[in-house]
Amino acid sequence: MSNNDIIIIGCGAAGGTAAQFARKTDRKSQITIFEKGKYPQYSKCGLPYAISGKIPKLENLIEFSEEWFKKSNIDLLLETTVEKIDIENKIVIAKKGKAIIEKPYCSLIIATGASPLIPPIKNVFENDKLIENIFTLRTIDDARNIIASIKNGKNATIIGAGLIGLEMADSLSDKGMNVTVVEALPNILQNTLNKDMSKIVLNNIETKVKILTNHIATSIENKSGKVSKVSIKNQETGEEKNIETDLLIISAGLKPNISLAKDAGCNIGKTGHIIVNRKCETSVKNIYAIGDCTEFYDIITKNPVPIGLGSIAVRQGIASGVNAAGGNYELPDGLLQTCTSEFFGMEIASVGPNFIKLPVVSGKYNGMSLPHYFPGGKPISVKVFVEEKTGKIIAAQAVGKNAAKRIDTFACAILGDMNVETLKKLETAYAPPIAPTLDAETLACDIVSLKLSRKR
Amino acid sequence: MSNNDIIIIGCGAAGGTAAQFARKTDRKSQITIFEKGKYPQYSKCGLPYAISGKIPKLENLIEFSEEWFKKSNIDLLLETTVEKIDIENKIVIAKKGKAIIEKPYCSLIIATGASPLIPPIKNVFENDKLIENIFTLRTIDDARNIIASIKNGKNATIIGAGLIGLEMADSLSDKGMNVTVVEALPNILQNTLNKDMSKIVLNNIETKVKILTNHIATSIENKSGKVSKVSIKNQETGEEKNIETDLLIISAGLKPNISLAKDAGCNIGKTGHIIVNRKCETSVKNIYAIGDCTEFYDIITKNPVPIGLGSIAVRQGIASGVNAAGGNYELPDGLLQTCTSEFFGMEIASVGPNFIKLPVVSGKYNGMSLPHYFPGGKPISVKVFVEEKTGKIIAAQAVGKNAAKRIDTFACAILGDMNVETLKKLETAYAPPIAPTLDAETLACDIVSLKLSRKR
Repeated sequence: MSNNDIIIIGCGAAGGTAAQFARKTDRKSQITIFEKGKYPQYSKCGLPYAISGKIPKLENLIEFSEEWFKKSNIDLLLETTVEKIDIENKIVIAKKGKAIIEKPYCSLIIATGASPLIPPIKNVFENDKLIENIFTLRTIDDARNIIASIKNGKNATIIGAGLIGLEMADSLSDKGMNVTVVEALPNILQNTLNKDMSKIVLNNIETKVKILTNHIATSIENKSGKVSKVSIKNQETGEEKNIETDLLIISAGLKPNISLAKDAGCNIGKTGHIIVNRKCETSVKNIYAIGDCTEFYDIITKNPVPIGLGSIAVRQGIASGVNAAGGNYELPDGLLQTCTSEFFGMEIASVGPNFIKLPVVSGKYNGMSLPHYFPGGKPISVKVFVEEKTGKIIAAQAVGKNAAKRIDTFACAILGDMNVETLKKLETAYAPPIAPTLDAETLACDIVSLKLSRKR
Repeated sequence: MSNNDIIIIGCGAAGGTAAQFARKTDRKSQITIFEKGKYPQYSKCGLPYAISGKIPKLENLIEFSEEWFKKSNIDLLLETTVEKIDIENKIVIAKKGKAIIEKPYCSLIIATGASPLIPPIKNVFENDKLIENIFTLRTIDDARNIIASIKNGKNATIIGAGLIGLEMADSLSDKGMNVTVVEALPNILQNTLNKDMSKIVLNNIETKVKILTNHIATSIENKSGKVSKVSIKNQETGEEKNIETDLLIISAGLKPNISLAKDAGCNIGKTGHIIVNRKCETSVKNIYAIGDCTEFYDIITKNPVPIGLGSIAVRQGIASGVNAAGGNYELPDGLLQTCTSEFFGMEIASVGPNFIKLPVVSGKYNGMSLPHYFPGGKPISVKVFVEEKTGKIIAAQAVGKNAAKRIDTFACAILGDMNVETLKKLETAYAPPIAPTLDAETLACDIVSLKLSRKR
């Protein structure tokens, strides 16, 4: 054993990135990744697009191949399940087939991810497994099974109108299926957008698929081992009905895979995830944790939030990899939670905490992506949230053309602790075929600024 | 005369905006605009696109009509030339046709703009006017004449490879003309991009039009009152040659229209433009100046720079309009000079001073707009400049997909006085169809950060 052996559990975006940055930081350390799945690092976020066919092959999602890891002198053991972390002897005990592997570490990085949450719907399981045409979407194999199942019928039901649920609605609709999305909450995208902003998205989607908000799925009808109908209930009226279903996708959130970390003594936080600091250290010495199994605090509220985004997982991968290899990398003092997606041709994006308890003033601007005289402009709505007392930018949401890149500017403003009175005067780039002289970004700030001045 | 009569000289983007914001700030003041041209506020930046036909009609460029000004209770006098500002009696003397107008003011806003600069090329003038098929592009009438002239031949020559020169090269090439661009400086876009960045643009453009850098036009051949050939000279080799030309466009910069302001006693700065402060006040009491006739200091270097951008003119219009009407509006403590354009399908953008004399460290990242596994990604190059001593972001340039919106994020970082060590950790919005997990924006920062760490 050398002085700096690093073990990483899990080769998703977080774990794979950690390995790469550990290698960049220390050319000599021995780096081992234990991954229980069959594939090296691949893009989970790309799965819906491989199902629709926009990404031609599932294998294209693999971002770093086994060969790549070999060339980088990183030992990647696939189909290998870690059974225990022995923190006293600093050993990881894993199983590959029938072989038991005992491997010592100096630094350990836990990147065990999360698993799909299955809401209490009657009859979805048979022998502890989801029945044949019910799926979650978390792995390449899930996607492969969904693709195979698309051929067997016209009607798809999706449980959950979050980002993945709507990405799947788009993909399956693209494949010619009749799609119904069932959402328990009153609005779609409730964790990403305010009601008025999500309404813009809803208006666009409703023309293409059926959206049932305030509805829960209560049970399914099992016909020769396959779902044939989903029973749903309107939570307001109590009304129940059945939806003909040839394919059921459950995208109702995630539960973190924390048992190894918990057994090793890592502190678990309020959200049920592993607590880490800005260096991605857990409460146990020499153990780091990253990605979907962890929580970290929001930059504004300082409340813990689960890491649900690949972009954050990658940044934690960088930090933990550098630190485990003897470097020093601190993440910013809280999460921005910048996120984006696109469905049915409409881009959405947001940054900042979802549930803000501070007194907040918001301003929304509905405009166009181009000057009115330039043909081809697309609608863009931007909503910005500032702290009432200070005018500090704390969150923003956008729906429409280049929503994501517009939100990046707000992310920068939040990270830079900027005030709306400053941001409203930002010189944004203007040219007729690209953006108007005054962009929706700063015009939304103007509206907030005006509201604040009236309160003072 | 009421207590707050406002006169504005010039109804371009600056003057027109000033009138609007003066009206918003004070519902009662009398507001008068004297405009020497025939049209109310229109988009000069849109002219190249009206020539190409992307904007179907020249009239579409009019952003606020005469009716609009009337409804807003703003007196707009077109084809009216101001002859003198009498600061002692606070009167503006103007001429409309043969009528002399004497109008008192409480606040005066000078928005007289700039005129095209004609380099010393032999034979371009006849009776003090450019000959028939030689044009500058500054007004709707210029554009109308160019459109008419396109029909008369195949060969166009453009003098100047700045933003407008290249926009026109694109437009005329779009109309089927053979275009040659003659640029005196060693690189195209020398005021906007560094050599390595402008090279990316050049490589794309060179396949479509002929670009001759390091060349000056020395004279033209006048054939029955029309240009038929342009003589050019290679400034390095001294070699001279002639270019067959049916249409010559001169876009070689601007000279500010400052004579009225100068006669009124307003201080003129180092760049030859009217000096203004953050409120757009000149050195003369109650006289503001805005737009292309003014200069203001760069936010980083604090050196004066001419206002050459419509976006800044509009922001000065807001500030001067609010202030002239009794409000209080201060622009940021210096210009960002965020700018963008697009030619031949390629977007470019930049922010920050063009000529930086501080010790600067830069980093460039050439990447793709989408993750490598997602089809349809386009090249994007981002270059960022930081102050060596402090790591402070001072400028950025981008070429490629969404260059403008990427540069807006850097503009925000500069306005927020942010450090590269902070910005490199920005959580940018990620989704496979929209942007990669790590964007070129932060990856360019990583490169600078690494360079800085090696210097320390």
